[in-house]
Amino acid sequence: MNTKLTGTSIIGSGRGDQTSDTFRAFNPTNGEQVEPVFFSATLDELDRAAELADSARIPFGNTTGRERARFLRKVADNIESLGETLIVRASLETALPNARFIGERGRTCGQLRMFADLLDEGSWVNARIDTAIPDREPVPKPDVRSMLRPIGPVAVFCASNFPLAYSVAGGDTASALAAGCPVIVNAHIAHPGTAELTGLAVAAAVEECGMPEGVFSLLFSGGYEIGQALVKHPAIKAVGFTGSRRGGRALMDIAAARPEPIQVYAEMSSVNPTFILRNAIEQRGESIVAGLHTSVTTGAGQFCTKPGLVFLQSGESSDDFAAKFQDLIRDTAPPSLLTKGIRNSYVDGSTHRQKEVTSFVENDERGLDGFAVNPAVFEVDGTDFLNKPDLSDEIFGPATLLIRSNDHEEMLAIARSLEGQLTASVHGTEADLAEYADLVAILETKAGRLIFNGFSTGVEVCPSMVHGGPYPATSDSRSTAVGTRAIERFSRLVCLQNFPDESLPDELKDANPLGIWRLFNGNVEK
Amino acid sequence: MNTKLTGTSIIGSGRGDQTSDTFRAFNPTNGEQVEPVFFSATLDELDRAAELADSARIPFGNTTGRERARFLRKVADNIESLGETLIVRASLETALPNARFIGERGRTCGQLRMFADLLDEGSWVNARIDTAIPDREPVPKPDVRSMLRPIGPVAVFCASNFPLAYSVAGGDTASALAAGCPVIVNAHIAHPGTAELTGLAVAAAVEECGMPEGVFSLLFSGGYEIGQALVKHPAIKAVGFTGSRRGGRALMDIAAARPEPIQVYAEMSSVNPTFILRNAIEQRGESIVAGLHTSVTTGAGQFCTKPGLVFLQSGESSDDFAAKFQDLIRDTAPPSLLTKGIRNSYVDGSTHRQKEVTSFVENDERGLDGFAVNPAVFEVDGTDFLNKPDLSDEIFGPATLLIRSNDHEEMLAIARSLEGQLTASVHGTEADLAEYADLVAILETKAGRLIFNGFSTGVEVCPSMVHGGPYPATSDSRSTAVGTRAIERFSRLVCLQNFPDESLPDELKDANPLGIWRLFNGNVEK
Repeated sequence: MNTKLTGTSIIGSGRGDQTSDTFRAFNPTNGEQVEPVFFSATLDELDRAAELADSARIPFGNTTGRERARFLRKVADNIESLGETLIVRASLETALPNARFIGERGRTCGQLRMFADLLDEGSWVNARIDTAIPDREPVPKPDVRSMLRPIGPVAVFCASNFPLAYSVAGGDTASALAAGCPVIVNAHIAHPGTAELTGLAVAAAVEECGMPEGVFSLLFSGGYEIGQALVKHPAIKAVGFTGSRRGGRALMDIAAARPEPIQVYAEMSSVNPTFILRNAIEQRGESIVAGLHTSVTTGAGQFCTKPGLVFLQSGESSDDFAAKFQDLIRDTAPPSLLTKGIRNSYVDGSTHRQKEVTSFVENDERGLDGFAVNPAVFEVDGTDFLNKPDLSDEIFGPATLLIRSNDHEEMLAIARSLEGQLTASVHGTEADLAEYADLVAILETKAGRLIFNGFSTGVEVCPSMVHGGPYPATSDSRSTAVGTRAIERFSRLVCLQNFPDESLPDELKDANPLGIWRLFNGNVEK
Repeated sequence: MNTKLTGTSIIGSGRGDQTSDTFRAFNPTNGEQVEPVFFSATLDELDRAAELADSARIPFGNTTGRERARFLRKVADNIESLGETLIVRASLETALPNARFIGERGRTCGQLRMFADLLDEGSWVNARIDTAIPDREPVPKPDVRSMLRPIGPVAVFCASNFPLAYSVAGGDTASALAAGCPVIVNAHIAHPGTAELTGLAVAAAVEECGMPEGVFSLLFSGGYEIGQALVKHPAIKAVGFTGSRRGGRALMDIAAARPEPIQVYAEMSSVNPTFILRNAIEQRGESIVAGLHTSVTTGAGQFCTKPGLVFLQSGESSDDFAAKFQDLIRDTAPPSLLTKGIRNSYVDGSTHRQKEVTSFVENDERGLDGFAVNPAVFEVDGTDFLNKPDLSDEIFGPATLLIRSNDHEEMLAIARSLEGQLTASVHGTEADLAEYADLVAILETKAGRLIFNGFSTGVEVCPSMVHGGPYPATSDSRSTAVGTRAIERFSRLVCLQNFPDESLPDELKDANPLGIWRLFNGNVEK
């Protein structure tokens, strides 16, 4: 695998042209451009990638789970064999430390192998079989069998904040490929070099495993035109996106206006309300304040699960808690954000919030290099919070808002006023959980994941994980972007009626040759 | 249960007003209005129903599966205890025979009891548990547990063509209530009396089972305003619709433009391509032509699964088959369609098609009473079919188009040209299935259900059924409107992290008190 960056798109087994529309990555620590130049894909190149994906749809969709498992493992192996080259490049483009990318690479390859294991085991297809009853009255019962099948070519938009785990070969790509869907990736302008390296690893795996070349393409783009055209393209049947609310909603609107509307899985915006009850502070105040600080500032606060709203019960212990938290934030070195745009949004957002509520950290960005910003903590009481709905808006980066309330009913009103969230957390005693069962019940209607005595950052990749939530947290609260169930997002149910056994896929054959769990005449069986 | 029709909406435990905006049902056999007058709901009444649904959201969502099972069974019992009153009214409003409604009532109550059984068994929630590993390196593994939870209040639009099975207490209502979602039904203008009777049965069950009154409301409306306002209402979190492509798309567009977009499950339009290969005709021509005739004309051809495109391989046997089919259609008594609008669309559609292709039945509606029409059969060759995309448009009612093609490649091109479908059927030998594997593979990307040697009408209600398909067959090809899996459409994944065992729902408790199937640390267990 030649890992020299060329800056051109990857289109099936070929490369895009060196077009006239170019851009470069930036080093966020000093704001300077880094080499090489990247070339935006043309609409013709997009068409070619989409045609290749369309022609790969049936052959790739008809590969066996084990063939796709081998392919996903090869992708993971190839990413690992990029070695330091990938880590150094990702760090250069994002100002996040090497150690972060060693961890994120582990998660990325772990996800790919998790889906490979899922495919090898095979039960994910949710096979159901109801056998015929030819002599049933008044009409015979037919033989009916169904399972999940690939939805078709998927467009994946790389996330600014996860250059590996939610980008070229990240969760959306892994789950779409696992389901049997060709993928066209739209690279993020913030880390095109990381994207190209990862893309080469995927493309090499396509070739090594003899997959149809249209299974994977990677398009570079300095603007929005290619991404929007990708979502409009008739060959594309679903979209995965992680980014801003504005960006996600724009893609949702484009997808909904297509002649054939398609599903966009956009993960957009979450302020992850965190309720820290008095008893928790009195019992474990020190560890909670340290945990909150880590959760708000790790990765420069650029996680979709960063606690952006922290509710405290008024009183002496919470005064003390807030003062300690303010100190920790004040002592935090200004981190560099991922892009100039993210830095500017952070400065605008926190400057605006400073005018509305009490701010405990001077938000003066003068004298900071590159895309660096000062972490910030704001404070407001419950009544004011309810009166100013924009206080729930996300500030992406190392900022959070403390809200003081001492009134159970007011806390319920606050919970009811929240938009959809990825997560909601409650810190307290087990007795508090019973006392605030009404609060938890409201939070359950607002969030995809509820956490007791823990912080929302750090998403475990496992079969039960739900990383999703009502709008605007995501565009589709029914599903998850993390964990094995993500494969269902790129699948659709298909049913075969009265097909002879030998023409059925192995998953639906009488003899169950794959040994998978199935619902057979209403019973779970293997 | 007082079953005297009042014509007013049912709003929780109360009734709507006798408003100034009124309408009546029609008797399709003579086109005359029937008593009583029905009163359109006001926007204020809609708001009241939505507020009631919103306040029922948490308490109803927190009922146990067994409580909801009892409620669904009570709904079924109450519908049955309406007896002849319901059957006679449904027949009066639709011109469909009593026997049809005895069958449809059986299906409706069967669906309600099927979901009750599903809730009693309990495994539908897809519970997953990953237990903690506190000493895992580099970070402890949290305890994570997830399951399906209700999505929130659902708006259900009654179908013209299924006054019982896809209307007030039909599939969408049953699956939404089963999931734990309050339902607001928008009655169909074609059968408001049937709707009121069924609504009374549901409302009585709400009261008898002590459910929150907001669990069910039924709104009458002579126009589109109430339905559109319902889809726009912020309390509504999902929509079920069965009807025309134009109507479904309009609701999809409204839902997608909301500040908080929501999912519309619209079942809209399908022409159910049916490929009858030469060998099938030579072996079983007589039974296939009779089966096709039944499938095209039963219920006046007003099924979403009616075969609207029938492909034949050119030759002597298919000439003979087509001639016999034309004779059968010519000898079919003109049936009455459900509404004047449906009748007019049928006449317009078939008159237009008559100009484009060969028509074998005179399409002259003069002298027919009420909303009666003549069944029709059209014919075209494969090349002309490919050149006239509007030949794939649905004509709702007893009409079908025969397409002759003798060229394998042309048949593939035809299959590729099709829009999304509910079903696709192939009649042939097992050897044909192998020879036409490429055709079947294309059809699989187009339809939710593939049928071998059978007709698409007659949808088995069972766990494996898939009644869905790519747009425009439905708005969401991932799911099904029929069968137990329909409950998933009104559910969303929710995850609980680190919650103490006693505060978990029974489905997620360590001891598995409900004895349901779960994925426990990656293993399927009970």
